[in-house]
Amino acid sequence: MNYGIIIKVLGDLLLFEIIALIPSLIISLFTGGKDLLAFVYSILLLLLIGFPMTKVSVKTKRIKARDALLIVTLGWVFASFFGALPFVFSSSIPSLVDAFFETVSGFTTTGATLLSDIEVLPKGILFWRSFTHWIGGMGILVLTIAILPAIGVGGYQIFKAESPGPITDKLVPKIKDTAKILYTLYLGLTILQTALLCFGGMSLFESLIHTFGTVGTGGFSSRNSSVGAFKSSYIVFVIAIFMIASGINFPLYYEIIKGRWKNVIKNSELKLYLGIIGISTILITLNLYGKVYSSFFETFKHALFQVSSIITTTGYSTTDFNKWTDFSKGILFLLMFVGGSAGSTGGGIKVIRLLIMGKLVKREILKLLHPRAFIPIKLNGKITQSDVVVSVTSFFFLYMVIFALSTLLISLEGIDFFSSASAVAATLGNIGPGFEMVGPTQNFGFFSPLSKILFSLLMLFGRLELFTVFLFFVPEFWKNN
Amino acid sequence: MNYGIIIKVLGDLLLFEIIALIPSLIISLFTGGKDLLAFVYSILLLLLIGFPMTKVSVKTKRIKARDALLIVTLGWVFASFFGALPFVFSSSIPSLVDAFFETVSGFTTTGATLLSDIEVLPKGILFWRSFTHWIGGMGILVLTIAILPAIGVGGYQIFKAESPGPITDKLVPKIKDTAKILYTLYLGLTILQTALLCFGGMSLFESLIHTFGTVGTGGFSSRNSSVGAFKSSYIVFVIAIFMIASGINFPLYYEIIKGRWKNVIKNSELKLYLGIIGISTILITLNLYGKVYSSFFETFKHALFQVSSIITTTGYSTTDFNKWTDFSKGILFLLMFVGGSAGSTGGGIKVIRLLIMGKLVKREILKLLHPRAFIPIKLNGKITQSDVVVSVTSFFFLYMVIFALSTLLISLEGIDFFSSASAVAATLGNIGPGFEMVGPTQNFGFFSPLSKILFSLLMLFGRLELFTVFLFFVPEFWKNN
Repeated sequence: MNYGIIIKVLGDLLLFEIIALIPSLIISLFTGGKDLLAFVYSILLLLLIGFPMTKVSVKTKRIKARDALLIVTLGWVFASFFGALPFVFSSSIPSLVDAFFETVSGFTTTGATLLSDIEVLPKGILFWRSFTHWIGGMGILVLTIAILPAIGVGGYQIFKAESPGPITDKLVPKIKDTAKILYTLYLGLTILQTALLCFGGMSLFESLIHTFGTVGTGGFSSRNSSVGAFKSSYIVFVIAIFMIASGINFPLYYEIIKGRWKNVIKNSELKLYLGIIGISTILITLNLYGKVYSSFFETFKHALFQVSSIITTTGYSTTDFNKWTDFSKGILFLLMFVGGSAGSTGGGIKVIRLLIMGKLVKREILKLLHPRAFIPIKLNGKITQSDVVVSVTSFFFLYMVIFALSTLLISLEGIDFFSSASAVAATLGNIGPGFEMVGPTQNFGFFSPLSKILFSLLMLFGRLELFTVFLFFVPEFWKNN
Repeated sequence: MNYGIIIKVLGDLLLFEIIALIPSLIISLFTGGKDLLAFVYSILLLLLIGFPMTKVSVKTKRIKARDALLIVTLGWVFASFFGALPFVFSSSIPSLVDAFFETVSGFTTTGATLLSDIEVLPKGILFWRSFTHWIGGMGILVLTIAILPAIGVGGYQIFKAESPGPITDKLVPKIKDTAKILYTLYLGLTILQTALLCFGGMSLFESLIHTFGTVGTGGFSSRNSSVGAFKSSYIVFVIAIFMIASGINFPLYYEIIKGRWKNVIKNSELKLYLGIIGISTILITLNLYGKVYSSFFETFKHALFQVSSIITTTGYSTTDFNKWTDFSKGILFLLMFVGGSAGSTGGGIKVIRLLIMGKLVKREILKLLHPRAFIPIKLNGKITQSDVVVSVTSFFFLYMVIFALSTLLISLEGIDFFSSASAVAATLGNIGPGFEMVGPTQNFGFFSPLSKILFSLLMLFGRLELFTVFLFFVPEFWKNN
């Protein structure tokens, strides 16, 4: 393990977090909030700890896969820990465990909250809470598309836009180029949505808050009743469309810019993703029309919004979907396991994994007919490596096992099965709200500190694609070789 | 498709069902039941339809994999349809859909019932209902261990006791030998358990009923309160031990007889199976002691019985486990997905599949460290073929998809989420009772006919290991080549 470089990079990260805190500090300054000192103290502490870390002597700049994985995981934990300080120092969330939960929820773009009243928060704190979504979303894009596949971390192959082949000598410029494209796209989406929301009459401040929550597929709002507080259908549809856009494989936007429309239209993950959204919206609309909502337009609006919100793992709500029928709630619950596309800011299992496994099942059935035939798994016309296929199936199994055992642990709180199951699915899948006791009008505040720590871990597990985190429990990982 | 041989074999099966009906007919004769004529009519109908079928001209005796799969699936459906007739003719279950459900539940060794009062049934009918478990259990053993792997039906490799290699010329004698060993073992277990139950004071009739339900891992009882009707702890433990014994890979008993103890002790599926039973029993005992039961012995007894009953997919109960805590109910619910061992009469996903997937996850984590290393999946010291691994993972995915979508369909009945989910898990896993509205003191009678048909299909899907049934939806299957 190259501890020198690990400490140095984490130090850089803490200094970067100072920059990330500046906008919130400025807002706090101009709104005369009591949260100003909280930001000042947090920044000083970050400087005090981060600066010496960046000065650690580094023997070699060579980063191995295992160093990168440690940096990524500790990075998310460190950022969340220090990012929680403004909440604690401003007494907005006095308990450190609670503030850590809320910040992990922010950086992992989950959007699960412990707060029952969001509207009383000072403006600076409110902005910071949502800004963590934006940073987390950008972080996961750059990591999973540009950095991890490039330095050869297994399990991230499915995020690759194209096969770069063995071009190690060009590695760093390539990472930088890819990252730059991603920044630009992400920033472009952000500016566009903010402008469209302002155009719809939303204040700039709230437009930014909801844009951060949307493009990061996070889900933190500035209102207690989430997007439901805005009665304009225009705003609801803008957010719905941008949620869907943020759940799409980002490299596809690059293809559009390059004019390679064919690659976009033929992309099978995109087709399945949009297909699931379409079918789910239709089923819920038909199921609820006349039962829960009297207007067809209202039914369709809420159905489309909620489907988009859950499948992209954003978690915004325009209505208390916990009052929907069991069938419609069931569809949303299943969508919690679908998640966004690979290479998007969305969490969950991800559409491409389901697509690959679906093809696997089809092949297995055909193999009953032709036991000796070799039938490759093809994706967008290319054969998928068997390594990737096995990695996908193991991920699915591990995901279900973590979901099942965590639900069991949470059930020790003495709450009903659907509440525990959906609370776990909502945190592991980086969604936010669940059903019943953690429904859209409820929050995670009533859980015991131990459960809150488990939920924080689940959010990290989900965001870092499971395996990464489990690696640290392998003794071999810690051996120097 | 060799339709000649398919019709002939199905005809043989119908004639065999006549033999299977004889014991119930005799019991009906001696107990003076009103069900006598129901059996006579059923037998006459079976003869009328079955006999001409056996006389169909057969061009070639060669059976291909696709013929075998069609025979197996239609065989289970035909046996259930005609086996349902005595229930209809005797007015014990007047509706054909209901009687079909109950008989499918019997032959697939599920044990889910539509009846609220079992004790009013005539003796002959009661015997037939349980006897279907015994036949179904024997059928699945012979099929999955002796016949299907031998004729090269893919997906059944994991049931193979040993690797026979390419010995096609010796195929039929080998199948017959294996089948004979299985019959003998199954009969041995049956006689032993019946004797032990009689010894404990149970009548011969009820001993047989509960032995059929146990060795077939079915779960039909002669009592409304299932095994809970018997207050003797001896009887509870005898049934628990035989349930566990019936969930073990049957070829392991052959190893014991041959004195190859080492193969048994070292068997990793057996270790995991017993380990899960042990840990679950301990967790439930600790969770419920002092809360639901005041005596430690009573707590342990019910915990062991219920864990054994659910993991082996039998479904007997000694207590209303629906009144347990959410944590203990959660453990039982998870056990519904574990199921018995491969090559047992138990259903569910099966322990060996979970074992293989667990090893797959471990390998995936190690591969993050050694991206280029080849790490084989070993089982009992032997490398598992990658074909088998892929088949296992596809099975798991398909199982979860069927579970999820069926739960969604059942939720249209307007019942709570846990009731629908556990009803689906209980039928797909061939268990029997679920939780809440389909708990151990409840039954499936209140569902709509459409849901009952879905449940019947799920029981067949589960028993025939999913792929087999889905094959019929592949157009290519029906093409003659």
